[in-house]
Amino acid sequence: MGPHPAVADVRRAVRDALADVPDNALILTACSGGADSLALAAALAFEAPRANLRAGLLTVDHQLQPGSKHRAETVISLAREMALTPAEILTVTVGKEGGPEAAAREARYAALDEAADRLQAAAVLLGHTRDDQAETVLLGLARGSGPRSLSGMAARSGRYRRPLLHLPRTTTVAACHAQGLTPWDDPHNEDTRYTRVRVRRTVLPVLEQELGPGVAEALARTAALAREDADALDEWADSAFQNCALSDIGESVSLTVTELEKLPPAVRRRVLRRAAIAAGSPSGALSATHVLSVDRLITHWRGQKAVDLPGGLSAVRRYGTLIFAISPIA
Amino acid sequence: MGPHPAVADVRRAVRDALADVPDNALILTACSGGADSLALAAALAFEAPRANLRAGLLTVDHQLQPGSKHRAETVISLAREMALTPAEILTVTVGKEGGPEAAAREARYAALDEAADRLQAAAVLLGHTRDDQAETVLLGLARGSGPRSLSGMAARSGRYRRPLLHLPRTTTVAACHAQGLTPWDDPHNEDTRYTRVRVRRTVLPVLEQELGPGVAEALARTAALAREDADALDEWADSAFQNCALSDIGESVSLTVTELEKLPPAVRRRVLRRAAIAAGSPSGALSATHVLSVDRLITHWRGQKAVDLPGGLSAVRRYGTLIFAISPIA
Repeated sequence: MGPHPAVADVRRAVRDALADVPDNALILTACSGGADSLALAAALAFEAPRANLRAGLLTVDHQLQPGSKHRAETVISLAREMALTPAEILTVTVGKEGGPEAAAREARYAALDEAADRLQAAAVLLGHTRDDQAETVLLGLARGSGPRSLSGMAARSGRYRRPLLHLPRTTTVAACHAQGLTPWDDPHNEDTRYTRVRVRRTVLPVLEQELGPGVAEALARTAALAREDADALDEWADSAFQNCALSDIGESVSLTVTELEKLPPAVRRRVLRRAAIAAGSPSGALSATHVLSVDRLITHWRGQKAVDLPGGLSAVRRYGTLIFAISPIA
Repeated sequence: MGPHPAVADVRRAVRDALADVPDNALILTACSGGADSLALAAALAFEAPRANLRAGLLTVDHQLQPGSKHRAETVISLAREMALTPAEILTVTVGKEGGPEAAAREARYAALDEAADRLQAAAVLLGHTRDDQAETVLLGLARGSGPRSLSGMAARSGRYRRPLLHLPRTTTVAACHAQGLTPWDDPHNEDTRYTRVRVRRTVLPVLEQELGPGVAEALARTAALAREDADALDEWADSAFQNCALSDIGESVSLTVTELEKLPPAVRRRVLRRAAIAAGSPSGALSATHVLSVDRLITHWRGQKAVDLPGGLSAVRRYGTLIFAISPIA
């Protein structure tokens, strides 16, 4: 008799995600003790020796809840039982910047990066599922910042891999149950002060109820397609930027207007964004509205004056050239 | 004292949408008698003479509800009061194909097209608002068929123009009220058997409540960005298809594999889709899964056999060429 179908699904996902890793490399898995990352850890423990890989575990103690240290220790003893070595607790102090979710995420990834470097890991596995992906897409949709924000989380990004991104959360829960593993229910997952929790508990169920089942799957599929589209357009914009750029001396970037005019709007705006950033405008502060204002120097040219951009820059059109440079002191 | 701000907003939207129409052209507006299209008709009646344009009105009697003829006649008398001429009732018979919403839409556009041709109209205005756009995006999202289905309705498509696509429904309601116009409340708008009605009444309010206000605006913004992205990728795919196509003789299309391999996945799949359709596969039946299977002849080539496609076609790889042709009879 083979393993439970859910266990088989999680193991196959891990196997596929690690197919290109060289023999004897160390793979780490991040584990909170929740169903997703627990099922992932168990699958890695099973697959790694069969693929000639070493497997270890990292658990982050965010020190945000009473008993978080004890929780982390419980995860470590599970890791020992699964023969995942090394198994480390990474204790972090979460700041305040950008809100509680963003601050916790930043502290967590900094700690995982440090550990992966120190332990010379070839990859770090993360337990995000299709449901997490659907939630991320909905959060991106609510921001309205365009297709890139709909593309959710990448299956691979640098050293991080998300083998479970195509599997529903029900599979990880079933896989834990079938293997006698008791997942931890993070009380943060019930705290409706978090937008993501409200998306999970209220928004997605209403969408499923009103639009029919399969919404989470449709959202995850949208994410994958949106990511490929955004990648292709970025590639086009990279080469178009090279084509349009006249000079890139010091902190000024100049683009040829006639070249910009040949581009479709979606590509032209990406080129303008790149030019502003290359000239020193901080990408976080540069909004779609800024880029649109610069675009009007191309599409609605009536001799208007310079457009101010974040970072003390401005974009000005002079004799068929668009110049991004530090604004002269008035 | 100027007009009520809502009236001014609707008028400005109509003025902007008609800025490029030549003098003395006839503009028709489609009007159900609902708040959106009633506000639009009033704005067209106001703006057309000031822009040296002629303005008329069309109202479609779908014959789906008791009293629909009377309703249409009421709209026509309003049109007469507004001096919109011609003002015509287009009586249609709605079929069953594709569900009630799709069948009604098809009958409606066929009648509008016929009238616009006969009356030699330069444009037909439609009263869709930002809220309609948000609903369309959510419906596309639930299908999960990718960024194109997120791009909602176009502000312009052939003879049709949607001047109100950036305005909320509250503006058209306020504009009607301010002008003493009593909009008709279509009972279909309350019928929760329609998915769109459930999206409007349940899904969007829950999204606004849980994710914060501005969700409809964010969805409409996503639609505009997704449309531009999809347009740019279609342009790329058109030229890539020309580049890759070896022959296009009769009902067979051949593409060079080495050229296909140079393309990013998002563009390559669009080229494969075009090739299948050019060879005779019906676009409605050709799914993303079909295209993905053909794509594996490029990305996962292990000498596999032909991939069957709708319309009795198959795609086969032979000596570095991908051939789309009618399948040989077995």
